[in-house]
Amino acid sequence: MKPRIYKLATIKISKHIDAFLITSSTSVKYLCGYFYNFEIGASPFQVIPAVLFVDSSEKTCLLIADNETDQLSEIDTHITICQYTSYSYNKPLNFSTDFHLKLIDLCKNLGSGKIRIGIEPNSLPQSIANSVYNHYPNVEFTDITNDLSGLRIIKDDDEIECIRASTHLCDIGQEAVFKYAKPGISELEHFTLVRGDMDLAAGKRVPMMADLVCGARTFDGGGNPSANVIKSGDLVLSDLTPCLNDYWGDTCNTMVVGKPTLQQTEHFKLVQETLQIAISAIRPGIHANTIDQLMRKNLASAGGFGHHGGHGVGIHYHEEPRIVPYNEMKLQPNMVISIEPGIYTNGYGIRLEHIVVVTQTGCEVLSKFIHRL
Amino acid sequence: MKPRIYKLATIKISKHIDAFLITSSTSVKYLCGYFYNFEIGASPFQVIPAVLFVDSSEKTCLLIADNETDQLSEIDTHITICQYTSYSYNKPLNFSTDFHLKLIDLCKNLGSGKIRIGIEPNSLPQSIANSVYNHYPNVEFTDITNDLSGLRIIKDDDEIECIRASTHLCDIGQEAVFKYAKPGISELEHFTLVRGDMDLAAGKRVPMMADLVCGARTFDGGGNPSANVIKSGDLVLSDLTPCLNDYWGDTCNTMVVGKPTLQQTEHFKLVQETLQIAISAIRPGIHANTIDQLMRKNLASAGGFGHHGGHGVGIHYHEEPRIVPYNEMKLQPNMVISIEPGIYTNGYGIRLEHIVVVTQTGCEVLSKFIHRL
Repeated sequence: MKPRIYKLATIKISKHIDAFLITSSTSVKYLCGYFYNFEIGASPFQVIPAVLFVDSSEKTCLLIADNETDQLSEIDTHITICQYTSYSYNKPLNFSTDFHLKLIDLCKNLGSGKIRIGIEPNSLPQSIANSVYNHYPNVEFTDITNDLSGLRIIKDDDEIECIRASTHLCDIGQEAVFKYAKPGISELEHFTLVRGDMDLAAGKRVPMMADLVCGARTFDGGGNPSANVIKSGDLVLSDLTPCLNDYWGDTCNTMVVGKPTLQQTEHFKLVQETLQIAISAIRPGIHANTIDQLMRKNLASAGGFGHHGGHGVGIHYHEEPRIVPYNEMKLQPNMVISIEPGIYTNGYGIRLEHIVVVTQTGCEVLSKFIHRL
Repeated sequence: MKPRIYKLATIKISKHIDAFLITSSTSVKYLCGYFYNFEIGASPFQVIPAVLFVDSSEKTCLLIADNETDQLSEIDTHITICQYTSYSYNKPLNFSTDFHLKLIDLCKNLGSGKIRIGIEPNSLPQSIANSVYNHYPNVEFTDITNDLSGLRIIKDDDEIECIRASTHLCDIGQEAVFKYAKPGISELEHFTLVRGDMDLAAGKRVPMMADLVCGARTFDGGGNPSANVIKSGDLVLSDLTPCLNDYWGDTCNTMVVGKPTLQQTEHFKLVQETLQIAISAIRPGIHANTIDQLMRKNLASAGGFGHHGGHGVGIHYHEEPRIVPYNEMKLQPNMVISIEPGIYTNGYGIRLEHIVVVTQTGCEVLSKFIHRL
């Protein structure tokens, strides 16, 4: 497989770009494999987690802090690594100066004529823009944010395997939700046990979003696990969104601790039927909002749902194609989508979610656990 | 207590600043109380987690995405909240346009003469700098990064209480390390149990860094918990760094599962004595590097340690005053510092760490757990 950096060629042509200065963590990960450990926030020893620079002769370099080399093995071998000094206990902090010196050096082969550099203005620090512009006044910046996120909508095969692995971790999490849910433990205790099983299966700590709520909180559709205690008869809504190897998985189930009411059982079946209707309709060429509409129509009698019908997943937990009323984007093979209809009524909520990858003829459901009340 | 935003007055005077455009998450938190949930990475529905704008008449406004309002109760009541639309399932994404419109509106009272705005160039996106400059070409930007981080070195009383609470959470974590350490469980299983106790004590999920390693891995001083299994006789090094209510705690212990060797016992005592020497020496007026030197000298016979002797903690897990060989900064009351000497030799490492706050006459140790092998 070709390194993904070559996908910049289309942007290069369409936007008349000579070089690229990539600064969003998402684009850097997509193009070269490097992601930073976002779980502990921004490091105090760096200007920015990473910069990927592609010069006019297509030489590509990743500029990162020298204390962020854990992930070097994941970086595409076609990329040159350039490190700057982040922190040393026996020398005063100098990372900003060192970073900018190295960056300016990377740009040295830009040439003297007018040079157009593709950038992402929302993630490009003003200090970096100024540094480049002050040393190379022949440079002109062009916004390529949407072009870059557009590249990511259709997944490569290796990306689908990453999402498959994250989704498998969701399966393990959903089984753990059943295993540990019982009256008397708090949402937070429940979450600790569920996350424990997921981390152990992954063999490492895994960043995770989780709506894991019980009882009346299910009516609001989610929220962080709290000290709220599970009671007999409570619904437990578990929307688990782990990030394994920089790709997110996302599935949701709703179960009952004890015996469901007749109405809960009927609502569960209706949501399950709705999910199946959407999955059966997914195929190349169908509009995203047609899928959304099918679900809203089937749930209208039960009050519908006040959120999206689904969304793309990948390096971000929420990306195109969004399954929403306004989105006329046509689905294509290798798009990966979560589908998540729900009913919120009578003081409770029931939501079910699967992840699918669009195939040549329909879709494959990546999540394998069985939704059950 | 006065809102912390008034601390900008000294920078206003010394740097001849008319207005402030604060963009680093750390400075925003410090000045107004708002922090974003960094544990799940950057939201796909925002330009930047938050902007704090102080205009020339000192009117202060926090500009945040409308899906980031969980923390509104923590924001200083003197601050006006301005929200932009982040995500809606029934309208196309438009957060960038809406953000910039609201930002430009915030700046409308800047006046027509030359206006100097204090900024943090490493966290100010080029899109924001351009937006302001294109609408208000009378604006000039001045870098106030170091002035802002300088403000945070001496903690306010409410900040010390926050760090005290985080450090108490470390105490709970260190006791949990003892409670759960046993032969046959992996570092990761151990970590899951320890973090579980800490989250339950906090009543919510708490972001956390943790060096939790056993056996030969202690020689390297730390690392993420892995599938590595604790064996009888292993040392377990536990450097726990939780972020409770946006302030970090940080303590370290090293224990043995089973019986320590004579040499391990001697090394443990030597590190403990060294920590006590440092703590006894801390008082206003002493240089940071004097504390560092005292520890290196006392451990020289055992090979010393190849890292800092300690560092400030607060909104960042590593800030001034750094206890390092080059740092001649004089300690002052209300500085909060971790002290962490260690010995790394013969295939193992022993590190002990406490958090202290400098008082008028010496220091108070905030961490209350007893270091023990």
